[in-house]
Amino acid sequence: MKLIFFGDAGDVAPLLAGTPHEVVDAPRRVEVDDALRGSLRGDIDSSMRSAVQTLAAGDAHALVSAGSTGALVALSRHLLGMLPGIRRPAIMKSLGGADGRRFRMLDLGANVGSGPGQLHQFALLGTAAAAVSSARGQVPNGGEVRKPSVGLLNIGSEVAKGPATVREAARLIESDGRLRYAGFVEPHRLFDAATDVVVADGFAGNIALKAAEGAAQMARYVLGRELSGNSPGVALGRAMLRGRLHRVRDAYNPQSYNGAGLLGIAGVVVKSHGGADRAGFENAVRQTMDALRTGLVERLAAGI
Amino acid sequence: MKLIFFGDAGDVAPLLAGTPHEVVDAPRRVEVDDALRGSLRGDIDSSMRSAVQTLAAGDAHALVSAGSTGALVALSRHLLGMLPGIRRPAIMKSLGGADGRRFRMLDLGANVGSGPGQLHQFALLGTAAAAVSSARGQVPNGGEVRKPSVGLLNIGSEVAKGPATVREAARLIESDGRLRYAGFVEPHRLFDAATDVVVADGFAGNIALKAAEGAAQMARYVLGRELSGNSPGVALGRAMLRGRLHRVRDAYNPQSYNGAGLLGIAGVVVKSHGGADRAGFENAVRQTMDALRTGLVERLAAGI
Repeated sequence: MKLIFFGDAGDVAPLLAGTPHEVVDAPRRVEVDDALRGSLRGDIDSSMRSAVQTLAAGDAHALVSAGSTGALVALSRHLLGMLPGIRRPAIMKSLGGADGRRFRMLDLGANVGSGPGQLHQFALLGTAAAAVSSARGQVPNGGEVRKPSVGLLNIGSEVAKGPATVREAARLIESDGRLRYAGFVEPHRLFDAATDVVVADGFAGNIALKAAEGAAQMARYVLGRELSGNSPGVALGRAMLRGRLHRVRDAYNPQSYNGAGLLGIAGVVVKSHGGADRAGFENAVRQTMDALRTGLVERLAAGI
Repeated sequence: MKLIFFGDAGDVAPLLAGTPHEVVDAPRRVEVDDALRGSLRGDIDSSMRSAVQTLAAGDAHALVSAGSTGALVALSRHLLGMLPGIRRPAIMKSLGGADGRRFRMLDLGANVGSGPGQLHQFALLGTAAAAVSSARGQVPNGGEVRKPSVGLLNIGSEVAKGPATVREAARLIESDGRLRYAGFVEPHRLFDAATDVVVADGFAGNIALKAAEGAAQMARYVLGRELSGNSPGVALGRAMLRGRLHRVRDAYNPQSYNGAGLLGIAGVVVKSHGGADRAGFENAVRQTMDALRTGLVERLAAGI
């Protein structure tokens, strides 16, 4: 693996002493305002544009960025283009259920206000991505290799529940023979991982993920607070349970699933959380390498 | 307090031996289908209709129901009516932040697809409800009694983020001198309780709450799983931390904030979760009593 860093060489180089790498000096960051104006002109010399351009030129195989989501989506669409037949990219994450079952969720915020047709496309993308893992023996939810199941995020499980857009998307997904539709998924059942893929509009998907992260963060906080203190009994209890309490805290840590793919883009682009720590960023890089090894983008293009 | 139970007398009476009560025999339940059809005719002899009618006739002061949310909203609007100037009810909960700070969130699912004008009304309702507690010395977030602050649920904190509806609602709330607007609240910051009131469309609000509940449920599950087993070390650790671990589990338990008010209705109607346990239902009843003691509905009518 060869690493190319895009950013201020003065900032980056000292951190990389001893690691084989290349630095492309691009001192200007994409500012949040650039992304919000949707302006792709303003960031002409930004590190992000420079990185996406390098990917577009074939001088790199994949990109990991912890910068602005809006700018990354816009630059990737513009410079790398979309897979055939796909209109908009979706942000997808592989998330873990309570029992280690995995599911893929998209869109987590690349778009706001996606219509039924877009949700249907996200179902196709998510199914193709889930099928790639299944084909490599990473079979989600049980041993049998079969068509991944697709659920739609909604606030009830009955067919007449929720917004018209979601109900119409359900109709489109259900009537598409390439997809295995499994009904609505309510947000409190997300982590049951009952379906291999969960489709949502980017607004609803982002809200569900961030609310779950907020609750997990509070869970960590409460655990830390209640198990703090230096009384001998508490210290003994902590010592007896040390390894187990570590596993609990790890399970509550969103860094463990940091890294979201920009699905539908004709290239491997992974978005890391801006506040990712070392382990979180490592997960994002690992996910990027997986996408390359499995030929995810080529298989998506073939599978849609 | 006098309790009137609406339901199948044969089912209800044996459970209430020794408790002073009255039973109104109404064996037919509102079926989910009735609520979804929006049909108020189909449930003419339902226990829920019978209960709402009793409230409307002035023969009861408040109603707690664990039945269908859709039916409860529809029947309450129809038979009790709305407060002057309010078009649609909102479901509101008082939720707890990590440090015991409280905030009110609405709408949690009475409506789907509320426009900017409705979100503005929810801000007025939530502010009035928060002000009622402040006036009684239950001052949210610090000692100073001042106008409650209002946040809007959104997927970013920058002004140009999110759906047009939410941005337009922000403009309406900000320009209303009766309200203290405090900007967008991102779902992962909900439990910081940085504002006294958080306003959302019922779809987004319901998704945020349920996703947080799902994560909390998973947190409980992981804690239980990791701290199970009978090895002497683990048993000793558990014994040393028993009281603290109980507090952790309680903090993760959605039953502790069961009970959601139907705000904007001209009457005290509280929705309990259908799966509430004894403690959860007690919380819903307690909340109902609080609403009566504080004269919530009268104050809302005066305060809007």
